[in-house]
Amino acid sequence: MSDPLKNISIVLVRPTRPGNIGAAARAIKNMGLSRLVLVRPVDPLSSDSYTMAYGAHDILESAKIFQSLPRALARCRYVVGTTARTHKGYGKPAPLMKTVPDILARAKRHPVAVLFGPESSGLANDEIALCQSLMAIPTAAAHTSINLAQAVMVVAYELRRCAETDGGKKPGGAGRRREIVDTDQRERFYQELKTLLEMIGFVKGTQGKHIQADLRRIFGRAEPDERELRILRGIVRQVRWALTHR
Amino acid sequence: MSDPLKNISIVLVRPTRPGNIGAAARAIKNMGLSRLVLVRPVDPLSSDSYTMAYGAHDILESAKIFQSLPRALARCRYVVGTTARTHKGYGKPAPLMKTVPDILARAKRHPVAVLFGPESSGLANDEIALCQSLMAIPTAAAHTSINLAQAVMVVAYELRRCAETDGGKKPGGAGRRREIVDTDQRERFYQELKTLLEMIGFVKGTQGKHIQADLRRIFGRAEPDERELRILRGIVRQVRWALTHR
Repeated sequence: MSDPLKNISIVLVRPTRPGNIGAAARAIKNMGLSRLVLVRPVDPLSSDSYTMAYGAHDILESAKIFQSLPRALARCRYVVGTTARTHKGYGKPAPLMKTVPDILARAKRHPVAVLFGPESSGLANDEIALCQSLMAIPTAAAHTSINLAQAVMVVAYELRRCAETDGGKKPGGAGRRREIVDTDQRERFYQELKTLLEMIGFVKGTQGKHIQADLRRIFGRAEPDERELRILRGIVRQVRWALTHR
Repeated sequence: MSDPLKNISIVLVRPTRPGNIGAAARAIKNMGLSRLVLVRPVDPLSSDSYTMAYGAHDILESAKIFQSLPRALARCRYVVGTTARTHKGYGKPAPLMKTVPDILARAKRHPVAVLFGPESSGLANDEIALCQSLMAIPTAAAHTSINLAQAVMVVAYELRRCAETDGGKKPGGAGRRREIVDTDQRERFYQELKTLLEMIGFVKGTQGKHIQADLRRIFGRAEPDERELRILRGIVRQVRWALTHR
């Protein structure tokens, strides 16, 4: 099956700040998308744009630029508009996370476009009219206005997150796992520690049992690996040596 | 139950671009968080910062500024570092979405800090050493370097998304409700332990730094509560007493 993320275009409609265009390019590349589409952008290749597109100049330079939104959307089979507002006829926009699985399912079969309006005003009514569905990024009521490039990042992140979980791919990928020590090794350490605690008179009689249980819990939660346990045992041994050789 | 989002501090460590500080403030407010902490920031209240903090000047102006990271974290009971890299002793950082439920569960009970390093280099080793766990924002392999403010946005979004859906499950570790100690208390213990290790000749010179980092990790994961920390400090003190009185 083809990678749905490669089939999703991020469409910035009339963006006015070049820094946002560059930052959007970077976010797109970070999250494994690749298609950036610009409709009547202001200075898309300015130095601000390049600075913010750090590491993603390829995305910026291969962005497709159109003078009209209908032309930009010509090859797309499904168009989703991003907006915080309720538009007549659409009802309340669906939350991002409810919409993303649908976008991904469609993008496995055909090109999908996700639209973002200009910084100050959002998508205009005639632009909204080209959308098959609308979605909103959930925000706190105290501040619903999200920076354009930040909105692109959140959508791109959610697309990737969802593609990885339902596509069966592993989010973290392969990597070194810590080999934590087994019970036997831990118990040997507790024995050595106990001997030390008796030596210095820290524990006496039944009270010792409680302290032992506490120490088991502390180091049990710590889940030391072999190297770490060697350090801990080394400390205990050296303390005992120091105590008997002074 | 208190809102866990209000108990989470976003800590920018040595941020160098004022625009990122402002953009982070806006992202924080968008997602319903409120605590911004800055450690040795460059020009946090410059005009660039204000511009990018559109609608969130209150967050920017109420940001707490510190000259040292340990001071910034003194009252935090749990510290999570954001990093794309694998750091010695920590293994591969866990993916954001695996870590967030744990952050939320903890934030219902006590202050939690999420750390972000400087734009160009990320968190330094001595800063990583103050973290109890590390997490990574999953990215495409082709471009793993995320803009600082974008990283804050993704983390804030994921915190909000998760808080709204499952409200944060139980934290890992003990089932019993435990009041774990804060960074300040932990650091005092490390100091005492270090003095002891020097006393017995367990650490010398630069090697000491590595061992210190190992011990921070071990006891960081262990998350001792006040009673347990008293036991640990008691052991160290009694050993020192025994060493000097024999």
